[in-house]
Amino acid sequence: MTGKHTWAIPEGYIPAESTGPEPEMESHETVCILNTNDEEATVEITVYFADRGPIGPFEKTVPAERTRHFRFNEFEDPEKIPKGEDFASVIESDLPVVCQRTRLDSRQAENALLTTIAHPGE
Amino acid sequence: MTGKHTWAIPEGYIPAESTGPEPEMESHETVCILNTNDEEATVEITVYFADRGPIGPFEKTVPAERTRHFRFNEFEDPEKIPKGEDFASVIESDLPVVCQRTRLDSRQAENALLTTIAHPGE
Amino acid sequence: MTGKHTWAIPEGYIPAESTGPEPEMESHETVCILNTNDEEATVEITVYFADRGPIGPFEKTVPAERTRHFRFNEFEDPEKIPKGEDFASVIESDLPVVCQRTRLDSRQAENALLTTIAHPGE
Amino acid sequence: MTGKHTWAIPEGYIPAESTGPEPEMESHETVCILNTNDEEATVEITVYFADRGPIGPFEKTVPAERTRHFRFNEFEDPEKIPKGEDFASVIESDLPVVCQRTRLDSRQAENALLTTIAHPGE
Repeated sequence: MTGKHTWAIPEGYIPAESTGPEPEMESHETVCILNTNDEEATVEITVYFADRGPIGPFEKTVPAERTRHFRFNEFEDPEKIPKGEDFASVIESDLPVVCQRTRLDSRQAENALLTTIAHPGE
Repeated sequence: MTGKHTWAIPEGYIPAESTGPEPEMESHETVCILNTNDEEATVEITVYFADRGPIGPFEKTVPAERTRHFRFNEFEDPEKIPKGEDFASVIESDLPVVCQRTRLDSRQAENALLTTIAHPGE
Repeated sequence: MTGKHTWAIPEGYIPAESTGPEPEMESHETVCILNTNDEEATVEITVYFADRGPIGPFEKTVPAERTRHFRFNEFEDPEKIPKGEDFASVIESDLPVVCQRTRLDSRQAENALLTTIAHPGE
Repeated sequence: MTGKHTWAIPEGYIPAESTGPEPEMESHETVCILNTNDEEATVEITVYFADRGPIGPFEKTVPAERTRHFRFNEFEDPEKIPKGEDFASVIESDLPVVCQRTRLDSRQAENALLTTIAHPGE
């Protein structure tokens, strides 16, 4: 079994504009979750801001032996995450999973990419 | 001896298009494995998807005191990894190794790069 | 409680030039700090250079359940961090936090991004 | 005291071409080392390849409370590292340090950046 129950990502930002064909080239901020267990994992994502209280949890499921790449810009329930504002996120899972985040920024003509494995909690 | 026996990479994606001279500028998704041991390491890579079961293992070897940078877009046995589809991977090695992944995305005129050390398992 | 009391970032560099509208597209070097505790965290950042002694500490606060994304190019007290010079940083917090750093480099026409979770101390 | 005695970086590559003014925009592959100790650290870097034995060690020093950002493309003693060839590196230090690697790739008109904290050894 590979993974941890808690992950933190201090940096989040959904660029307000995009260049290029959607959805591949739409600016997006993604959390990628890998569940290697033989049972579905239930994941709760809480989003933190600079100047107001956290929102969420956003509930997601990752089936057994599957990966799901969730785009923060598509989160809707319980509310949307505003574009152009700094945020951070904490991912809590009932089963051990592995989390990584990636951003495609296509605000300028050529896209830019960044990624990092999230910080595993205890 | 440096390394771990298990590594996980939640995010994988082989862009469907490229710009620029191949093979240097072909869009690719790479896992780089370093084997500092004085014996050859046998590595098994399993690839996970969003909506179907995992494929593999893809068997690779890394000779003693060597590094090998494997491109997911060149995997063929037991099958190819489709382009333009989200995936994740788990690397299991009989000897402790260190894994890192890198992507060169040349879909637009200027290339973009990302990298991260993989998540080490227990 | 998620996080550590000490974090290190060996690479820092504030590009001397920018292209594009400020402040979004101004070249910047950011440390993002997430405080999931229910109390305010007091953070001290020390900046190291190649050829002279460290400066700081720069004192910052991150309120309870908030994230703050600090730009090194806006640090002023006790002194400014010079542009175009290699630096490193150590972040010490009285409460456990999680740190990540990101750079937007807009020296050339298209921006480039990089990020990594900082290295957690003991 | 922050850091470890051993670090591994599985991915290395010095692009063969550059675009833009040197040395800032010359394609480079950097290892950034932070020494927060109050004594000079002596560092030995060994470079691994795909199809031949490792070279080195390249000996470097990082003074007390300093950071040094070493460019692999400037290594000369005991030999140069070839451009356009995959490599990996292991950093061993007599004092605990923190290592991060960064690449600026300016082969195409717009530069691309990547970075990651190295993998800490035991």
